[in-house]
Amino acid sequence: MTPHTVVGASEWSPRVAAPSIPIVRDQWYVAAYGSEVTRAFLARTICNEPIVLYRTGNGAPVALADRCVHRRYPLSESRLDGDKVVCGYHGFTYDTDGSCVSVPGQTRIPRTARVTSYPVVEQDSFIWVFIGDPKLAGERPIPRAPWLNPEPESGFVTVAGMEPIRSRYSLLVDNLLDLSHETYLHGGYIGTPEVAQTPIEASADEEANIVRVSRRMADAECPPFYADSTGISGRITRWQDIEYHAPCLYLLHSRVAPVGSLPHEDGTDPDAFHTEITYAITPETDHSVLDFWMVSRDFAREDATVTEFMEKNNHTVVMQDVDALNILEGVIADEPEGFQELSINIDAGGLAARRMLQRLATV
Amino acid sequence: MTPHTVVGASEWSPRVAAPSIPIVRDQWYVAAYGSEVTRAFLARTICNEPIVLYRTGNGAPVALADRCVHRRYPLSESRLDGDKVVCGYHGFTYDTDGSCVSVPGQTRIPRTARVTSYPVVEQDSFIWVFIGDPKLAGERPIPRAPWLNPEPESGFVTVAGMEPIRSRYSLLVDNLLDLSHETYLHGGYIGTPEVAQTPIEASADEEANIVRVSRRMADAECPPFYADSTGISGRITRWQDIEYHAPCLYLLHSRVAPVGSLPHEDGTDPDAFHTEITYAITPETDHSVLDFWMVSRDFAREDATVTEFMEKNNHTVVMQDVDALNILEGVIADEPEGFQELSINIDAGGLAARRMLQRLATV
Amino acid sequence: MTPHTVVGASEWSPRVAAPSIPIVRDQWYVAAYGSEVTRAFLARTICNEPIVLYRTGNGAPVALADRCVHRRYPLSESRLDGDKVVCGYHGFTYDTDGSCVSVPGQTRIPRTARVTSYPVVEQDSFIWVFIGDPKLAGERPIPRAPWLNPEPESGFVTVAGMEPIRSRYSLLVDNLLDLSHETYLHGGYIGTPEVAQTPIEASADEEANIVRVSRRMADAECPPFYADSTGISGRITRWQDIEYHAPCLYLLHSRVAPVGSLPHEDGTDPDAFHTEITYAITPETDHSVLDFWMVSRDFAREDATVTEFMEKNNHTVVMQDVDALNILEGVIADEPEGFQELSINIDAGGLAARRMLQRLATV
Repeated sequence: MTPHTVVGASEWSPRVAAPSIPIVRDQWYVAAYGSEVTRAFLARTICNEPIVLYRTGNGAPVALADRCVHRRYPLSESRLDGDKVVCGYHGFTYDTDGSCVSVPGQTRIPRTARVTSYPVVEQDSFIWVFIGDPKLAGERPIPRAPWLNPEPESGFVTVAGMEPIRSRYSLLVDNLLDLSHETYLHGGYIGTPEVAQTPIEASADEEANIVRVSRRMADAECPPFYADSTGISGRITRWQDIEYHAPCLYLLHSRVAPVGSLPHEDGTDPDAFHTEITYAITPETDHSVLDFWMVSRDFAREDATVTEFMEKNNHTVVMQDVDALNILEGVIADEPEGFQELSINIDAGGLAARRMLQRLATV
Repeated sequence: MTPHTVVGASEWSPRVAAPSIPIVRDQWYVAAYGSEVTRAFLARTICNEPIVLYRTGNGAPVALADRCVHRRYPLSESRLDGDKVVCGYHGFTYDTDGSCVSVPGQTRIPRTARVTSYPVVEQDSFIWVFIGDPKLAGERPIPRAPWLNPEPESGFVTVAGMEPIRSRYSLLVDNLLDLSHETYLHGGYIGTPEVAQTPIEASADEEANIVRVSRRMADAECPPFYADSTGISGRITRWQDIEYHAPCLYLLHSRVAPVGSLPHEDGTDPDAFHTEITYAITPETDHSVLDFWMVSRDFAREDATVTEFMEKNNHTVVMQDVDALNILEGVIADEPEGFQELSINIDAGGLAARRMLQRLATV
Repeated sequence: MTPHTVVGASEWSPRVAAPSIPIVRDQWYVAAYGSEVTRAFLARTICNEPIVLYRTGNGAPVALADRCVHRRYPLSESRLDGDKVVCGYHGFTYDTDGSCVSVPGQTRIPRTARVTSYPVVEQDSFIWVFIGDPKLAGERPIPRAPWLNPEPESGFVTVAGMEPIRSRYSLLVDNLLDLSHETYLHGGYIGTPEVAQTPIEASADEEANIVRVSRRMADAECPPFYADSTGISGRITRWQDIEYHAPCLYLLHSRVAPVGSLPHEDGTDPDAFHTEITYAITPETDHSVLDFWMVSRDFAREDATVTEFMEKNNHTVVMQDVDALNILEGVIADEPEGFQELSINIDAGGLAARRMLQRLATV
């Protein structure tokens, strides 16, 4: 069991200036789904760094700084020559490790002609890139989400999407760590009165950099998202167990079962429906974030109707969040410095996450 | 008779840096027409303050700060529960006085959970809100415009509209205090050569905070706006008497009559056509203003054709001003600091208004 | 022969912070083509100065500051009364020399009522205006481009256009001084491999303020732009001789001939096709530039098909540059201060031009 601290209401002042949460560097971030990275260039800005992603002929993912060393032209506006990138402005040519191998009008290639090559790992359906000092890439863990792997291996079927949001990433962290908003923002989809009413338990593992928030509803209304996908017709026991691996990966272990049905003593849980909800939270700039979302289920795995329903329904839920966070970013942009906010018990997880991010950003 | 100072050409330097006129606080402002405020939320920004307006079931207007104390979500994105506002993000619930009466996940409501409730008065077709220290609301006068009340009572029929302008409010004050622009910007509508040619008389009542500008044309061309609405076919005597109640309400008492026709000694004026032109000038932000405009007439009151003509014609005139002020704001945004302007006699009223606003802003 | 310095690779550090090149004042700039200036107002911003251009009834071009002295309303939103400009807001009226000759409401005209009148010269199809201290206008040369005059006189037929670019003007100077980009950005139009491969010679005449860059390809592929217009079917001798008259006029003397064909000893050159490519580079604001482009040829002068082809083809090439420079301006706007760039031999001309502009801006 990892060390952790229970966080609660006594730890915060009721009304304080909302802090500005910096982007955390020296960390792995999800730059793309593996399926997005092909032999055509994909330009993504990650933590304010412009990056071009592509695959070599052998399928290996490559991530280079998206700026030619010559006159900063975006390499994503260039073309591939085999596995090499030929800048579309003056033809500076780069190998997959970022070294320049050809320049126009001369044979000598300047020693300093090199673009940054980012450490890349393809795992659990994601292309992870390391933002920061590459010497630290090996010692920083990449959190896992094995249910995102193909079904025969993982036992889960996944629907997924990505939405860019014009808000600072910390607003998305706030949003996901406090699910009481499901009742109000997502009523009729995934929210019911019990989510907002039921108190939470929150804890922070400052060694593993994980915030956990748990809300266990013993007798709750079943929201349409689960009623329609599981076929349960009555009230349910509903567990929401969040594991936020700061800064990038958010896991929500969701368990839904007929009221009173609990896991067996041997660990099996045959009467419950398990859904793994995964978010990769990737800061794009100081004021925008990439919201990668996935819903993986261990039930009705071969039912295409359920797959389609969950994809459509969850996309609607994500867009409700996108709209709300776009609005909130506008609110914050227009408000005076030091504007105050008021926190209550439901915010324990979000506040713990903010503190963790602050600490990680200043290490 | 209130004290006043005659203002004239001797009071200003011919070419000086254009001043920046601050927004005046501790004042009543028109937030909306009464007809705009219903059981659905209306979001308005007044003097940089985001406000949500609605009516209770009894019809009483309510004006609250449009930011939840929890995470600043706009309350205008919420829903009504009876007369209470339920925040659309996490369900913080507010009574009409701004006090929080319910929060999610706990029964204790933090003492400091309260949003600002603005003093509101509904009068002369307007919803007035007080911006500033609410303790001063009672002692600050609300200027009147009784002709805006329904016709049987007021003797006037009114057409009205509202246009947001992307310019600082002082440009609208400048515009309205110097009507010589009617000749050039509104030629063919309300301007004729005599408006620009005829000198004005201007005075400032620094106690009542009123600037008066008067232009009396004894023998003038009749512009289409009045020719078509009154039926006068020849030349006219035309009086324009402005009363600007700084900062918010601008009244233009317009009198049009056949040439030589004057009011009788007993005060009656049966041969003239009287039009009350009202503007509520409400700063939205430092760089935008809400332009509420109304035209009230005491003639042809039952003639729907005249009503329609005046509404359409004046809307065109207002849009000419909107276009000009949008252009001017762009000009000022791009120009260097301390850019100079040159004032002449026609500017006496506008300069007096600027001085009054400067004074009111620093009280 | 004017004094000059050969510039080359030894003069720069390989990787340095990209400098910010200021706008050069006290210089003549192309404000418009003569054909653009008519009896209707043309508003142009040149070197951050808003200017209104028009012609008198006699056809003389006039350039006035585009801001009324009264309340800064753009005079380009006004109307002409004979040759005089009547402001569209309050009727301030200006003569062609910028002096105010009439104001509303009074007969006395303030002594200081005058807008700036710019020195104007119409020459070689351009309307040149002098930006800066007008006392220096007479001593600063206006570079010539006689081939832009009508065909019977000049012996050249010209196609032309103008594109505003949302980039600082120095990016267009960089672009035009280093034609190796033709191979990559304009491949299939005017670029072939030899342009990027062939070394250049560059020199700077610091007295006449001219940068020269020469690239002479003895045996090169003929790009479609010249193959289709000249009818040459095989390989060519291709000369590119640039003369950049800093800051405003860029001339590219292009000579294309069958391989091995050189000018005769007597100076005649009957086997070659000569194209004069002219760019007027006019800074609009600190972050935008007007790109006037012209292509003049001494061959197939009566062939309308060639005229149409060259106009369309070169417009496509210009738009490729516009797109690239708009992208680059965005790149620079988002990058941290002191971002570095790496220069090689092909940049000798561009770097010499930057140094010359820096010097001219600080004279």
